[in-house]
Amino acid sequence: MYGAGDVRVENVPDAHLIEPTDALVRVSRAAICGSDLWPYKSMEPTDSGRRMGHEFIGIVETVGTEVRTVKTGDLVVSPFLWSDGTCLFCREGLHSECLHGGRYGFEGVDGGQGEAVRVPQADGTLVVLPVGEDDALMPSLLTLSDVMGTGHHAAVAAKVGPGNSVAVVGDGAVGLCGVIAAKRLGAEQIILLGNNPERVALGQEFGATDVVRERGDEAVERVRELTGGLGAHSVLECVGLEQAVVTALEIARPGGAIGRVGVPEHDTTPTSIAFWKNASMAGGPAPVRAYIEELLPDVLEGRIEPGRVFDRTGTLDEVPDGYREMDDRDVLKFQIDF
Amino acid sequence: MYGAGDVRVENVPDAHLIEPTDALVRVSRAAICGSDLWPYKSMEPTDSGRRMGHEFIGIVETVGTEVRTVKTGDLVVSPFLWSDGTCLFCREGLHSECLHGGRYGFEGVDGGQGEAVRVPQADGTLVVLPVGEDDALMPSLLTLSDVMGTGHHAAVAAKVGPGNSVAVVGDGAVGLCGVIAAKRLGAEQIILLGNNPERVALGQEFGATDVVRERGDEAVERVRELTGGLGAHSVLECVGLEQAVVTALEIARPGGAIGRVGVPEHDTTPTSIAFWKNASMAGGPAPVRAYIEELLPDVLEGRIEPGRVFDRTGTLDEVPDGYREMDDRDVLKFQIDF
Repeated sequence: MYGAGDVRVENVPDAHLIEPTDALVRVSRAAICGSDLWPYKSMEPTDSGRRMGHEFIGIVETVGTEVRTVKTGDLVVSPFLWSDGTCLFCREGLHSECLHGGRYGFEGVDGGQGEAVRVPQADGTLVVLPVGEDDALMPSLLTLSDVMGTGHHAAVAAKVGPGNSVAVVGDGAVGLCGVIAAKRLGAEQIILLGNNPERVALGQEFGATDVVRERGDEAVERVRELTGGLGAHSVLECVGLEQAVVTALEIARPGGAIGRVGVPEHDTTPTSIAFWKNASMAGGPAPVRAYIEELLPDVLEGRIEPGRVFDRTGTLDEVPDGYREMDDRDVLKFQIDF
Repeated sequence: MYGAGDVRVENVPDAHLIEPTDALVRVSRAAICGSDLWPYKSMEPTDSGRRMGHEFIGIVETVGTEVRTVKTGDLVVSPFLWSDGTCLFCREGLHSECLHGGRYGFEGVDGGQGEAVRVPQADGTLVVLPVGEDDALMPSLLTLSDVMGTGHHAAVAAKVGPGNSVAVVGDGAVGLCGVIAAKRLGAEQIILLGNNPERVALGQEFGATDVVRERGDEAVERVRELTGGLGAHSVLECVGLEQAVVTALEIARPGGAIGRVGVPEHDTTPTSIAFWKNASMAGGPAPVRAYIEELLPDVLEGRIEPGRVFDRTGTLDEVPDGYREMDDRDVLKFQIDF
């Protein structure tokens, strides 16, 4: 990406091992993330460009001398951040804060929207998948790299549990995965706030029991009506725009919990809404590495189908179109099949 | 209170039973709350005045026909809010959101800074104390009405647990009770942020292991130094002023928890600080009724001495002086002995 709206597919030097803890992965599938649209809307033009992409599955081509848990030929999924798996934060399940981790596309590490990636801290980062790269489950397995884990993180941060009423703010790919996560964790009522007909319909197939198409005060009113006047036990904020965050705070019931995963549009939040009713707020960049082993069996056994959020599959050359279509909201989520 | 700085002791009609669920309590001890200082600083002048006070212990004089759990002659402590104890929020331990509860001093209910109070929902609200009203433990028992329960709420909201590092922002009576609560819940390191020599010294007696006298960025730096560069697992925000809230957010470690009980000066909070490190925020008006039974044995057996926050005891006539002295920070907390 060379600036807002300017995505180019170019030849770059081949990825290669640098550290003994690296693995070299040939990418089979990758995706465009909703968070990639932020620089696509606003990035200042640059001459050097920025490597993009952080959601991918691939085949291990070779590994450094210290790598123990993955080997050449393995099909692996990478979380959107790399992490060592051994530092104090990783041991607490907060891989997103790994003391020796980092982001794809920065500091000499390749982006995932490319043919090959040097994966640092391969032992801590990669998870071997027990299927072939032509498996029909590939789209759902790909969501474990980010969007499904992020929806799950929102649900965990919002303390979703059996019998809960849950409201999910946003019908994007993360919100829809939040619906899957809420149902999976036993929510009784799942209210999806969104107004895109196809996305809302998919959310209902994923488990949403109610849909609120209104916005702002009217949305708050509708959620209250649907929850006996009280608001929802758990609210998943999957947008990040100010209006969405305020709505999320308003529709939580007293003592409820708001789980935030939408990248915040603003630094400040009207938290007094939460304070006066003792609602909690938690969340942030999801430690998806912590969740892969938990979610993987449900994907492999077909109990959840988060891969359905991909409504367009294209080649690497079509990635610039994918950005444009996602930005125009013509496409929910774009998958790259190499 | 007739306006900012204008507190008067006046004769009012005798308190009397109205509802069959009421109890009439003759007040033995009462206190001035830090939150009483907010209207003392800013209240618009009125002709009618406002009844003040919501922390008290007293003797039950008479009860309504439906009251079952307290009887004439019982010494009782009231939480700072009255609540029925049976609604869905009370059953969840969130008595501050009781569907049939309310506040002292409003809607025909007496304030606690007076000789007698009609206590609505007496069965749900009052807790009988197994001592006489001349007991030496009276000051500590009185703190169960608010300040000790509020400090405990901050600690619970900040997820204090065994081995945690805890930072307490504020050396007021709530912050000092937060230190007690953190120690009681097993915190290993308790860093008290405050700069009043007497209050900090009391905090150290209560269990603070470190004191940070700096403010703002310097305070953040000091707490980071004291916590291996990481920040504290749990942060108790016991002030409410914007600077204190920002400091609280900054000194939480990644994945940490901030428990807020300081009445917010501003509606908005720079929550992106918390978002990017996955720190949680919780708290609000404390459901102290939920905590009285838990804290009471520790007070009765002398394991905690929160009553030491009272550094001045006076008569009802001295209450206007008490407000002024607390507002001037000459007095930490004023106790009224009837």
